[in-house]
Amino acid sequence: MGGDHGPEVIIPGGAISLVRHPELKFKLFGDEQRITAALGGHPAMADRSEIIHTDITVSMHDKPSQAVRRGKGSSMWRAIETVRDGGADLVVSAGNTGALMAMSKLILRPIADIERPAIAALWPTIHSECIVLDVGANIGASSRQLCDFALMGAAMARALFHIEKPSVGLLNVGVEEIKGADEVKQAHAWLKDTDDLPIDYRGFIEGDQIGQGLVDVVVVEGFAGNIALKTAEGTARQIGQYLKDAMNRSWMSKLGAVLAHGGFKVLKNKMDPRRVNGGTFLGLNGIAVKSHGGTDALGFASAVDLGYDMSQSGLIGRLRTDIDALHGRIGSQLAS
Amino acid sequence: MGGDHGPEVIIPGGAISLVRHPELKFKLFGDEQRITAALGGHPAMADRSEIIHTDITVSMHDKPSQAVRRGKGSSMWRAIETVRDGGADLVVSAGNTGALMAMSKLILRPIADIERPAIAALWPTIHSECIVLDVGANIGASSRQLCDFALMGAAMARALFHIEKPSVGLLNVGVEEIKGADEVKQAHAWLKDTDDLPIDYRGFIEGDQIGQGLVDVVVVEGFAGNIALKTAEGTARQIGQYLKDAMNRSWMSKLGAVLAHGGFKVLKNKMDPRRVNGGTFLGLNGIAVKSHGGTDALGFASAVDLGYDMSQSGLIGRLRTDIDALHGRIGSQLAS
Repeated sequence: MGGDHGPEVIIPGGAISLVRHPELKFKLFGDEQRITAALGGHPAMADRSEIIHTDITVSMHDKPSQAVRRGKGSSMWRAIETVRDGGADLVVSAGNTGALMAMSKLILRPIADIERPAIAALWPTIHSECIVLDVGANIGASSRQLCDFALMGAAMARALFHIEKPSVGLLNVGVEEIKGADEVKQAHAWLKDTDDLPIDYRGFIEGDQIGQGLVDVVVVEGFAGNIALKTAEGTARQIGQYLKDAMNRSWMSKLGAVLAHGGFKVLKNKMDPRRVNGGTFLGLNGIAVKSHGGTDALGFASAVDLGYDMSQSGLIGRLRTDIDALHGRIGSQLAS
Repeated sequence: MGGDHGPEVIIPGGAISLVRHPELKFKLFGDEQRITAALGGHPAMADRSEIIHTDITVSMHDKPSQAVRRGKGSSMWRAIETVRDGGADLVVSAGNTGALMAMSKLILRPIADIERPAIAALWPTIHSECIVLDVGANIGASSRQLCDFALMGAAMARALFHIEKPSVGLLNVGVEEIKGADEVKQAHAWLKDTDDLPIDYRGFIEGDQIGQGLVDVVVVEGFAGNIALKTAEGTARQIGQYLKDAMNRSWMSKLGAVLAHGGFKVLKNKMDPRRVNGGTFLGLNGIAVKSHGGTDALGFASAVDLGYDMSQSGLIGRLRTDIDALHGRIGSQLAS
């Protein structure tokens, strides 16, 4: 029921993903009538779907605390419960981010002694994509939490990019000796010493290097991470606007733009936010993917694909082992 | 002597600025022989310049603390001292950022009871430009410091954009009820109540709205601010690369790109980082502008122009009054 459009986007989105992954099965939570109507145009999807009716929905405007208090039995709540109870491998929602995060944390619980789950985003680079986390689950992060993010991001990179030892960078500012950021420095010291863990730690990176694809995983606390993500989106839109204005300046530019149509199409595709739609809540005992609320069917299908790839990878079990090893290491360093 | 090129870029840069502002006079600090040689090709600049010889220079690799300890008598140090002593209206350097910041703070001292000077950057928007601060002078900021940044940025906006009450936004993340960021919330509460001050406070804005030109001044603490700035630069470069690749894909795209040459030139000009070169240290009893170390003469000229506009505006005296009023207000609110 989530997102700006509800079943009218969710169902066609699932149908696109089903073509790519015919083994998919869906449990659709929400208003049976609307869901049935939307399934009408997608018989293959209808064949693979079970509808679980509920009248209660979480609105896009509910605060997370309200949603948790009042949302029991809602489509979102029941979908997450189904993952916890083994009735589904993952949950995908285009609904209220804060509510999905709060409910997922409450129902699925964090893995082992991870204190803070994080939201991970796929970020397009000049080579392919990287994973950036945290992009807004929390503000601030301790050194240990930053180290956890490194392992959580690496687990996701392993699942999506099929790299055994993903490269990891810690986002920092370039000025030396700047005051503060002690958490980042301590995390750096701990991460340097992780040869036994399945990550290839590369040290500090700066904001302009994310899009260069220097590393597979970029670790940052959620305030700066969210601002970085939004700023990159805004800059891309801004340049798109410049480009459009520039091509409309003269008849020669317009003619050129027509001839270069194929090139512009490639560019547009590269910059299409639907290709990398889906933030993932990492660090929970279950996979929860958040699709952009305003996306279309193609974008929603990307979010389903993302969850599918992650569920196929055995990521959670492996992450549990890695986190235990890391925390043992940090604990013994703190004790010595 | 600063930057990647020294006098060979600084002198031609100053010469470009002199054409725009014939009333400029220069004091050039550094190696007399190199400076004289570089002035050879710029007789108009030579006429308006005085050379102050010094053998000591601050290297790009010196740590700020080293530079402050060992840099007494260096070209950078003496240039800043000259501003303090009234021998110049402003200092422009392409040298070591951390060293310039540390020395400026030590020699010029912060205005009134401003605890932390900030680095302000000009940020291109779809309309024109806005000012973002802090982009890396410090990590973290208290509520009061964020309020100071608002007034400091507004003073700069008044000088550069000639707006009496510049609009100000506080950079934040969009998720409601997220934990942390108490400093940002408290600063918001204080800034809402500033009708008597020369700013038009517009509340929170998100990272994707900076480039939309929603406000004249964007306030953020230095860690997230630096990451946002670098991320925007990186994204612009990344999209430039996509565009180049896309236009080289087929002969038709290539032909189109040739015909659209004029449009692409406009785009390139819009995205030219040299147009908005120069970070300014705000909050000191004197104007210190930092040019990018790697820039060329045109970029350095932008930094000189920026300092010139600021020095013409009587910004520091006015800022002193505004800060006093703000701190009085905050003090009485805290007391009540």
